[in-house]
Amino acid sequence: MKKSKIAAKKTIAKSFAPENFHVVLVATRNPLNIGAAARAMSNFGFRSLRVVNPYEAAWREAKSAVGASELLANAQQFASVAEAVADCTLIVGTTAAHNRTLQHPLRRLDEAIRVIRKNVARGERIALLFGSEKRGLSNQDFSHCDWLLRIPTSDANLSMNLGQSVAVCLYELSRSVSSRTAEKVKLVARRDNLAEKPATSAEVERITQVLLDAMKSSGYLQRHPTSDAEERLRRLVRRINLPASDVVAWLGILRQISRSLERK
Amino acid sequence: MKKSKIAAKKTIAKSFAPENFHVVLVATRNPLNIGAAARAMSNFGFRSLRVVNPYEAAWREAKSAVGASELLANAQQFASVAEAVADCTLIVGTTAAHNRTLQHPLRRLDEAIRVIRKNVARGERIALLFGSEKRGLSNQDFSHCDWLLRIPTSDANLSMNLGQSVAVCLYELSRSVSSRTAEKVKLVARRDNLAEKPATSAEVERITQVLLDAMKSSGYLQRHPTSDAEERLRRLVRRINLPASDVVAWLGILRQISRSLERK
Repeated sequence: MKKSKIAAKKTIAKSFAPENFHVVLVATRNPLNIGAAARAMSNFGFRSLRVVNPYEAAWREAKSAVGASELLANAQQFASVAEAVADCTLIVGTTAAHNRTLQHPLRRLDEAIRVIRKNVARGERIALLFGSEKRGLSNQDFSHCDWLLRIPTSDANLSMNLGQSVAVCLYELSRSVSSRTAEKVKLVARRDNLAEKPATSAEVERITQVLLDAMKSSGYLQRHPTSDAEERLRRLVRRINLPASDVVAWLGILRQISRSLERK
Repeated sequence: MKKSKIAAKKTIAKSFAPENFHVVLVATRNPLNIGAAARAMSNFGFRSLRVVNPYEAAWREAKSAVGASELLANAQQFASVAEAVADCTLIVGTTAAHNRTLQHPLRRLDEAIRVIRKNVARGERIALLFGSEKRGLSNQDFSHCDWLLRIPTSDANLSMNLGQSVAVCLYELSRSVSSRTAEKVKLVARRDNLAEKPATSAEVERITQVLLDAMKSSGYLQRHPTSDAEERLRRLVRRINLPASDVVAWLGILRQISRSLERK
């Protein structure tokens, strides 16, 4: 890897101080959703939760729930969106709208995250706003946003559950911050045990021979006589793509079966 | 866009029949989570929900909830994982484990989705399994899976809420189906039976059971007693990529061997 690339990576990692990224829940009604948002934040390594005008009962219940996290305990409460985002330089709102006439630029989640990442890399402070379960963000709330993002959902059911949409946004963000190198992971098309070393030809042959013995002693070959039984069996065994690490187990089982048949 | 590209897109769109992709919830306790899973499915355009042994009260409550969707009404209930995945050819389990010793290949969500997408493009039937809120999937459940996927979460809090993890998985899948045709679904030559249709889960299970009988009657299990012989064998059998067209031949051979052992 080139030095410049390493430097760039370090910059992202360093400047992605989780405390520079704020999840802001506006007028949330359901304590379970506040808890779910906090849990997703914790899952993906984010720390700063801000709540604006939560329904008081919901907020009390969420904070006092069994297992409520440090993250919830440290969450900050604000009386208005303006105050909650005051120290941020990029404010992004979320919406389910695909076509609704919006006054704001609207980006699909993956595009949005690319832009957010650039701002993150510059060390900016960012707020991502989520509206209430019933109404989402209001036009008043939108007016505090630089632009909006939407998660691409099906036309048949645009509107996501609050906790789930927080999880999807943070997944996409953490995915692109931490793991884009993985995109170079070489693609192998095998359905299964990708990384598994395949058995050697000699091992496949050993399996074939033990099975052939069992076919003889069980009477299979007498019942289905063919001139090329051994070749057919070998092709069958080869087609199963036996992993090298399983050869010993298979040989153990098949040898015991074969020996037991011979003892008859 | 070139004609060939349009054709490729259509093929993917067409072969991504949502009815070929099954979300399977195993032993779910909380009706809210069943509802949340159904909502995420609907958000991202999926239709087939299967439940295995849900807590009965939870299942009744979820189905009768206000606004419970057609999707929930059409969900199928099964008594075992084996039955729920019997008609599928690729079975993927979800787990929060990063390092835990697993008997199965483990893929990160984005890699996993790439593999799933290739199978989808071949028109295969796929099941994605989610375990219970408390314990996740059991080793017994895992033994029905071809491999496992994990959502890359923070070490400080690995375990996601069930509804949120369903949402993240389906987001990633719909994202890559709809907008990442970019990857041009290049079918890299699989080492062997690329073109071969894989055996269904029910067929793999039949092979497993005949082999298990043979292991019993040959005395293998008495000599190597373990509490989880059946699961181990199931994993061994699943790891070999059995082509559908070879199932009859294998069953013929193994049944004759097993019968002959029993006649002893």
